[in-house]
Order: sequence, then structure tokens, then C-alpha cells
Amino acid sequence: MTAELISVGTELLLGNIVNTNARYLATQCAELGFSAFNQTVVGDNEPRLADALQTALERSDIVILTGGLGPTRDDLTKETTAGLLKRNLVRDERSFQRIKSYFSGRNIKDIACNNYKQADIIEGSIVLDNDDGTAPGLIVEHEGKIIILLPGPPKEMTEMFRNKAYPYLVGKTDGTIFSSVIRLIGIGESKVAEMVDDLINGKNPTMATYAKEGEVMLRLTAKATTREDAMDMLKPLQEETRKRFTGYILTENPDESLEEIVVGLLKKAGLSLSSAESCTGGLLAGRIINVSGVSEIFKEGFVTYSNEAKVKRLGVPTATLEEFGAVSVETAKAMAQGCARATGTDVAIATTGIAGPDGGTIHKPVGLVYIACSFGGNTVVEEYFFKGSRDRVREQTIIRALDLIRKILG
Amino acid sequence: MTAELISVGTELLLGNIVNTNARYLATQCAELGFSAFNQTVVGDNEPRLADALQTALERSDIVILTGGLGPTRDDLTKETTAGLLKRNLVRDERSFQRIKSYFSGRNIKDIACNNYKQADIIEGSIVLDNDDGTAPGLIVEHEGKIIILLPGPPKEMTEMFRNKAYPYLVGKTDGTIFSSVIRLIGIGESKVAEMVDDLINGKNPTMATYAKEGEVMLRLTAKATTREDAMDMLKPLQEETRKRFTGYILTENPDESLEEIVVGLLKKAGLSLSSAESCTGGLLAGRIINVSGVSEIFKEGFVTYSNEAKVKRLGVPTATLEEFGAVSVETAKAMAQGCARATGTDVAIATTGIAGPDGGTIHKPVGLVYIACSFGGNTVVEEYFFKGSRDRVREQTIIRALDLIRKILG
Repeated sequence: MTAELISVGTELLLGNIVNTNARYLATQCAELGFSAFNQTVVGDNEPRLADALQTALERSDIVILTGGLGPTRDDLTKETTAGLLKRNLVRDERSFQRIKSYFSGRNIKDIACNNYKQADIIEGSIVLDNDDGTAPGLIVEHEGKIIILLPGPPKEMTEMFRNKAYPYLVGKTDGTIFSSVIRLIGIGESKVAEMVDDLINGKNPTMATYAKEGEVMLRLTAKATTREDAMDMLKPLQEETRKRFTGYILTENPDESLEEIVVGLLKKAGLSLSSAESCTGGLLAGRIINVSGVSEIFKEGFVTYSNEAKVKRLGVPTATLEEFGAVSVETAKAMAQGCARATGTDVAIATTGIAGPDGGTIHKPVGLVYIACSFGGNTVVEEYFFKGSRDRVREQTIIRALDLIRKILG
Repeated sequence: MTAELISVGTELLLGNIVNTNARYLATQCAELGFSAFNQTVVGDNEPRLADALQTALERSDIVILTGGLGPTRDDLTKETTAGLLKRNLVRDERSFQRIKSYFSGRNIKDIACNNYKQADIIEGSIVLDNDDGTAPGLIVEHEGKIIILLPGPPKEMTEMFRNKAYPYLVGKTDGTIFSSVIRLIGIGESKVAEMVDDLINGKNPTMATYAKEGEVMLRLTAKATTREDAMDMLKPLQEETRKRFTGYILTENPDESLEEIVVGLLKKAGLSLSSAESCTGGLLAGRIINVSGVSEIFKEGFVTYSNEAKVKRLGVPTATLEEFGAVSVETAKAMAQGCARATGTDVAIATTGIAGPDGGTIHKPVGLVYIACSFGGNTVVEEYFFKGSRDRVREQTIIRALDLIRKILG
């Protein structure tokens, strides 16, 4: 089956935003085994959108549109699609109630009338609830074609697609696709690509590499008539891959985050955790607290941005700061030890570094980071030289810090 | 004049990369005053590319293609364009010499023959030298239309466009565009849209609304023969908009973040800041520390996730926690006051809430958040009912917390 994407929005034509929706949906269609030959971007303009949709329906089995479902008069995707398919728009009571409760839940009483326009759906369509916003999505089956309308904001779109449209589309694939992942940590993408070069060119099963910040994901996909056959086809490739990357495998669970893995390990071992952050400024604690139910093991964190706070909260000796500086093995170690002492937790993690863009010197360049972890009377310190922007230095620090806890517990 | 973009590359259709080229070229076309109604992505496939180019030439004055100029047999953009225009490909001696010296300058002696294919140009075209790679770009003037072929790698493309194609296109423009933004906070997109409904349908100047997490951006754009004329045309619309949204205007700077605004206000007033976080778990401090040079005003933060930490670090009375609970006006207030006391900073911000997905009750549902700010002996507490996932509740809390500091200082 062929699928194509139409992104609707003048902001894309003006270059105000980059089209991450098209990229996301393209990966999803590839995963589903749909062939994709075209993507189109068109403004919030009825005749031009109708034209793009008409063309897409002539050449593809599935057309996915994003954007233009909102409350304003610029939002025309639903109206245009209904017009082209010669169907009516009808008020969907369930969506109407959901929009009402969305606003009342936010204590907003003065609801703009045009919000209710979002409850109008194309007659005979399947409604996809929007759990992160007000505009529902729609699936329209029409003369053997499938048209899917999704909201434009990436967060609303991706959640709706993955949870609602994807399961629907799985049922439409010719044959079945089974895919599994192997997630690697502590190894670069080009090195991974080199190591699987001979495996990556297969037609079925296939393998692809995806680099995320701090990890590389290998996706292995097989296509067969049944799920069991596809799984069987994948096995030799999985085994070969596992063998090649011994020591680098983080998990084979596609959805489990690094912080979930770490919190899981701590819970299993019955250990508590605290944090002391300088360069990451609270983001490491924030990442750990991403995990629901973490209060069982995470007690508290310190954001000791100033030297004064490092001394006062963590008991880092003034002499250590003066002799070695705030960004040093010694300070990192004292921060982790002091954090464990102050909080009484079993494990304490500390970060200190130069996130940039300013503050670097020849001896201590931007990107120099120390991560320390105290556990069972021992304190391990790691030194890193990270590249990239302030954000990237901090993001890499968070990942390495979590991975350090994982390695120590694992 | 109308311009449209065709991005060529199977990697875009598979979602391996995000289409930043289209975004860049869209901003450039807007700056040049070209109207842009369509963008297309198509694979490295001759009939489909020819089809896309044919369609584009029928409806637009200028067609810009990126990608498919490289040395491999997959690279077909030049061949396809030449075929459609019924022109020959001819060897360009100057490009041939440049490619040779590109490789010899890199000490590469064994040059693959297909590299010289890149020196073949469409007969009668203007050659754009590639200063960052091997494939030259081309401008073809054909029956009143302009076709521009640019390489796919973003670095090569942007440099070539800006330095070579842009100056050429300036000579072809019928006017220029000037656009400015007004960013609003504390008001929803649909409410904004309703309030500017009568302004939004103008042809020139135009106005458009964009929702980001926690704010709404209005973009005002005018088209005229000179930049000064365009700026003058925009003034009455800017003034009317400012008048309508008094009290909601965050900034008119398109690039300044909310945390930069807040840190700027604190620096200007010579005030120091600290934070005490429960539901945001360090992310608020992390956001503040996004701002380079923040150490001047931000001293430290507490992530008091457990009740114990709230008592021990911030001196929240155990009685307050027992009587009103950790998520209450009283606890939020005690957290902010205790944070100010413990740190001695001028301003202290505190958050406590139920980020979900678990932990909600009928009286205290998921999404209930209290934000408190202490300043000059006073403590203000705000209550919110946020919707959405754990992440979104926390993100909205951070924005509201920063905005509370802004309002108190502003």
C-alpha cells in the first residue's frame, strides 16, 4: 500500500517552523511497511488544499493530513476534505462534551464559541480523541481510500497517531510487520553503522539505525503473513546483533526510558536516591522525577549552583573549591559524598561542569563535566569532554549520570 | 512572484532526516517577498520527480529544487530537469577543474569516475560554484520561469543559496517583506483569534496567530517596494494590536525566551533568586539555568520531593503538611517563605502539585498545582488546574511559575 503526507499550514510555507510532523509520520509509515513517494506542504487555503488532496487521492491508498483542525477561521482542513468527498460536517456530541470539559477542567468559563467548531466531524468518519488538546482527529474511509486528519501541534499529533491511528493502520497492512529494537548506549552511531554494515542491506528482514541523544537504536523489522512467521524471521538477526554489541545493550524495550530503567533497578534493590547538581541545574532530578511513582526511592535533590551552596548544603570543603575549583574530580566527589551524608540516601549522584557558552579556559574547556556517584561507601567519578551547545552538554551529562547509576547497580 | 520548493530525496520520504532545507528556503523566499503556496518532497525517481517539476512549473514562477546533484546513480535531479526542459547536459570545464582540485586539496588521488558526472550542467544554465562540496548548483531560465537546482547537504545548500542564488533573486523581486511579532502570555489561542478576527483577513498587511506551549504569537507582515515602506505600513496594525492586548504582551522580541526575560528583570533590579520544587522536581531551576550567565542572580534550588525534605530544608511545619496536605495553598506558601529564609535570596519561587498520572483524588485531582512566590516580605500563591500528561502539567507549571516572577517584578 502507498501512503502520502499533506502538511497543512502557512507557517510551514513561511518557514516559521520546521516540518517535524512529516518526518515522524514518514518513519511510522516505513515501519508499517507502506511505500511513500510524496509529501506535500500547502497553506491554509481551500482550493489549493483541495487540489493537493485530490492529487494525493489519485496516486496513494492512504493520505495523512496534519494541521488545520483548530478553532480559527484559518483552519480549513476538515471543511475542505468534507467538500471534496461531498460529505457533510456534523456535530459530534462526544467531542463537544470533551471540549467543554477540557475548558471547565482548566477553570476557563469564557469559552470562545469557535472552539465548538472543533466538535464538527466529517459524516461517517471515525473520531480520534485528542488527549492533549481540543481538536479531535478523524479517519475517513472513502471509495477504497483512507484519509486521516490529525492536529498540527506535534505533541497532540504524535500521541494521537501512535495510540489511535497506528493500531487502526496495522489492521490495514498487507501481511504483518513485526519489529523489535535493540538499544545501545556508550557507542557512537557511525561505529554502530560500520559494525552492522553487512547486515543493513537486507530486504526482509531489514535493519535501520537511529541516533538519539546518548544512544543508538537499532530497529529490526520483518514482514510475513503472520506475526509468528515475522518473529521467527527476525530471530537470527537479533541473535547476531546481540552478539556483536555485548556490553553496549541498554535494553530491548522500545518504550522504556533510561530513567525508568534506573528507577526500576533502585526499586528492585530497595535503595534510595538523592542528587546534587551544578551544571545540570535540576534537570537530572527533573528527569528522574519523570518516572511516576518515583517518590518511593527519590527523596530530594540540591541545585547547588553557587560555591556557597556547595559548602552550605553539601559540606564541600572551601579548601577543595579553592585548590581544585568547582569543576574538578575532587569537588564532584565531595558533592556526591556530602549529598549522601546530608540526605542519608543509599545512592547519591552529583554533577559539576562547564556547560558554556562562556566560562571555559584552556585547562578547563567548555564541555568538561565531572559526574560522581556514591554508593555503599565508595564514590566513582567520571570525566567527560562533551561537544555542542549548552543544552547538549547538559543533556549528555544527564544521560551519562543516569547510566553511571545503572552501571554501578547493574 | 510565486516560488515553490521541491526537496528530492528518499531519505526524507523514509523519515531518516528532517527537512530543514525547506524551512530555510521558505524563510528566504518570504524575505524576498515571493509568495509560497506549495512545497513538495519526492524521492530519487525520474518519472515522479519529472511529474512534480512539471506541476510546479505550471503554477509557480520560480521552482527551487534541493538534492539529487551528487555523484551516485541515484542522483537524478539534473538529468530529470534537463529531460523535461529538452536541453542537453554538457561538461562544464570550470566545474570539472574545481572538482579535481577539491579532491587533490584533500590528498585524495583515487577519485571515483562518477564524481565527474557532477561537472555536467544543463546547457545554457548559470553555474553556482559549490564552496563546501563538489556538486555545483544551477540556475536555468526557461520560458519565463526560473529553475534553481541546489545540493542537498544543508551546509552546502545554505551557503550557495545565500551567497549566489539570493543575490540573483533580489534582482527579480517585485518588492520586499517586513514582518514583526507580538508575543502574548496568559491568554488562549482561540480567545486571541476571536479578538483579532476583524484584523486577520487583511491582504496586506497580514496577521497570523501561532500557539506555543503557554503563549500565543502574533505575526504581522507587510509587503511593499522598500523595507521602510513595509515597516510604515505595519505601524497602525501594531499599535491596534498592542492596544487590544494590554496586560498580555510578553515581548515583541521573536527570539527571547521567558526565562531570559525573567533573568533580565532580576538582573536589572539587582535581585537574587532561589527555588523550591516539588512537582516540577528541578525542571524549573533547570529552565532558569538555561540562561547563560545566570549565576549572577540564581544561587541555589531545592528539590523537596518528600515531605521530610520540605520540613528539613524549608522548615515547612509538620502541622501544615498534616492539616492541609503537601499540595495546598498553605504548603506552597510555607515552601516559598522557607526557601527565602534558608537561602537569603530576594525572590523565592515554589511549586507543589499533582503531576499525575497517579495520586489524584476527587478534591485534589491530577493537574492541581500551587505556585508561590515570596518577594519583599509578601508571598503570592496561585492555584491552577492543568490538563494533559505528567510532562505537560509540569511544563505548564514551569511557564506559570516564571510568569509569576515576571508579573511580580514587572
